[in-house]
Amino acid sequence: MKLTILFGGTSFEHEISIVSAITLKEKLSGFDLTFVFCDQDHIFYLIDSSKMRANTFSKGEHKKMPKLTLANGAFVQKSLFGSKEYKGIVLNLIHGADGEDGTIAALFDFFAIDYIGPRVDACVFSYDKRYTKYLCEARDVKSVAYEVLSVDEHKNLSLAYPIIVKPARLGSSIGVSIVRDETQLDYALDSGYEYDSVLLVEPFIEGVKEYNVAGFKADGKMYFSIVEEPQKNEFLDFEKKYMDFSRSEQVLKADISDELTSKLKANFEKIYTNLFEGALIRCDFFVVNGEVLLNEINPIPGSMANYLFEDFKDSLKMLSRSLPKTKKAKISYEYIHSISSAKGK
Amino acid sequence: MKLTILFGGTSFEHEISIVSAITLKEKLSGFDLTFVFCDQDHIFYLIDSSKMRANTFSKGEHKKMPKLTLANGAFVQKSLFGSKEYKGIVLNLIHGADGEDGTIAALFDFFAIDYIGPRVDACVFSYDKRYTKYLCEARDVKSVAYEVLSVDEHKNLSLAYPIIVKPARLGSSIGVSIVRDETQLDYALDSGYEYDSVLLVEPFIEGVKEYNVAGFKADGKMYFSIVEEPQKNEFLDFEKKYMDFSRSEQVLKADISDELTSKLKANFEKIYTNLFEGALIRCDFFVVNGEVLLNEINPIPGSMANYLFEDFKDSLKMLSRSLPKTKKAKISYEYIHSISSAKGK
Repeated sequence: MKLTILFGGTSFEHEISIVSAITLKEKLSGFDLTFVFCDQDHIFYLIDSSKMRANTFSKGEHKKMPKLTLANGAFVQKSLFGSKEYKGIVLNLIHGADGEDGTIAALFDFFAIDYIGPRVDACVFSYDKRYTKYLCEARDVKSVAYEVLSVDEHKNLSLAYPIIVKPARLGSSIGVSIVRDETQLDYALDSGYEYDSVLLVEPFIEGVKEYNVAGFKADGKMYFSIVEEPQKNEFLDFEKKYMDFSRSEQVLKADISDELTSKLKANFEKIYTNLFEGALIRCDFFVVNGEVLLNEINPIPGSMANYLFEDFKDSLKMLSRSLPKTKKAKISYEYIHSISSAKGK
Repeated sequence: MKLTILFGGTSFEHEISIVSAITLKEKLSGFDLTFVFCDQDHIFYLIDSSKMRANTFSKGEHKKMPKLTLANGAFVQKSLFGSKEYKGIVLNLIHGADGEDGTIAALFDFFAIDYIGPRVDACVFSYDKRYTKYLCEARDVKSVAYEVLSVDEHKNLSLAYPIIVKPARLGSSIGVSIVRDETQLDYALDSGYEYDSVLLVEPFIEGVKEYNVAGFKADGKMYFSIVEEPQKNEFLDFEKKYMDFSRSEQVLKADISDELTSKLKANFEKIYTNLFEGALIRCDFFVVNGEVLLNEINPIPGSMANYLFEDFKDSLKMLSRSLPKTKKAKISYEYIHSISSAKGK
């Protein structure tokens, strides 16, 4: 299968995206892969597959590689001798801003490029944790209680300690703190506000059971990965999570009942349907007293959660045959014609 | 003031956008205006101000004008003799798809172009009427009861007739029907599904009072237009609404109490705050038994609702000085460096 992998982006998760792309290069052996890097200035580079190493980017060696621009239906490489088009399906593997906030999705929609990844509206509901809460409420999926804090207005918290403070629009545990009592609050808020002007505060549930499951829709049917119980160390710090993004070994299925597995999948499907079509996403759940709560939606999970799938390559192939198509409006100018003739001009 | 007006787009409201742009040309006399047209194939054209007439586009004369592309911070006109940049603030005046669905917002965010108009997340919550309902619920703004119908699944309606059927993602009354009894339902659904695979059904409230108010935030403060009671003819059909988009005469203030005016503005502010910054929007409300219900958010109202403002030019100037700035992530490659050295490569 032919596939272009887009990675990088202007985001705190830029480096994580590079690691994800390198991991997928290994996992997708046999695929006809093209690598496109988006640097922090939003310039696209065509990366030679043999140069897909982390230090190519940290050393700035990508700057010597060919630049690409977007045109209708393709990335284009222009040179003195004309231009070469790179067509076909793109896998959006930019984590965080750009990739998960709807920017890349909109760019590809505008330039009519087929892509695996969340569409604009799916991005908005998963990137901003406030909007994930709105989605849960509207779709009858339970989640943890929350309060919103904004840098512009002072508000007293009504949640009891311990609490967890998170920037509204960042993943990968960046800027996240657990606050055990009031003395730790200011520091946690300052850390959070470094990354976002809006923070989400939730009760921190000690020793909560956590389960992750990935999935996608193809040919009108949901496909799920195995359910994983992630290793926990209170919560993953950035560096541990970073390593996590390079995972490629298949993990063991969580030892849970069929009933709980079904509940997790039913909640996943409620979130996914009519919103995430075209994307392979991972939903992270908490289970408290047998009740399933959505913790987070990862619309572009690290290395595409390949380690959760029994046949990752086939999953991507199936998904790529079921990408949403947008209907184009026909523009006939009939109103302008009719009004022009009514006005006699 | 220097301002670029972007209009057109691949949308059922393409022609309406042209009319809006022509109207603004008149209303913004004295401004240093540049006109950029986005055609149905997503090609940008620089339109000579003297050619800003509806039939320039319906006759295809724009195709003889210079093509523009997007680059970092500007629209660019390339020619044999080099390239010319068109910098400065853009007013996004593309109604419907492209302009109001987040595509243009994301494009401008990606290319670091300052713009007046809704950001990506604001678009998602106003373009899709389902998500407007989610927003109302989350922000404690009342709205009309609703059900969602999808072309993929059959569902019996529980709302009593008369009802109003609307495509979830279209404005300007396109595809909207009032259904008085079951015999009219199939036709209404078919009309709606012509435009969208998802429909919203609401009770049709006979003779409901309707009030529109526009506004924006500048220097941290809300500014509101006068409140208008729109003329009604059951509901505006496309052609009447089309004419409506060329409005430029100031309207009369609705004859309502100060208390109701305050209630309308308070609801507007709940919707606007922390979401619509950078945009001048119009909210259309219903009032039923003294209760204010949000009917619709117009994040790019026809001809920017100029006719509702006592000083439209000053309003645009104020707004243009308060556009949101995005914070760029600093990319240091420190994780790649630290991991590379840990691994000894």
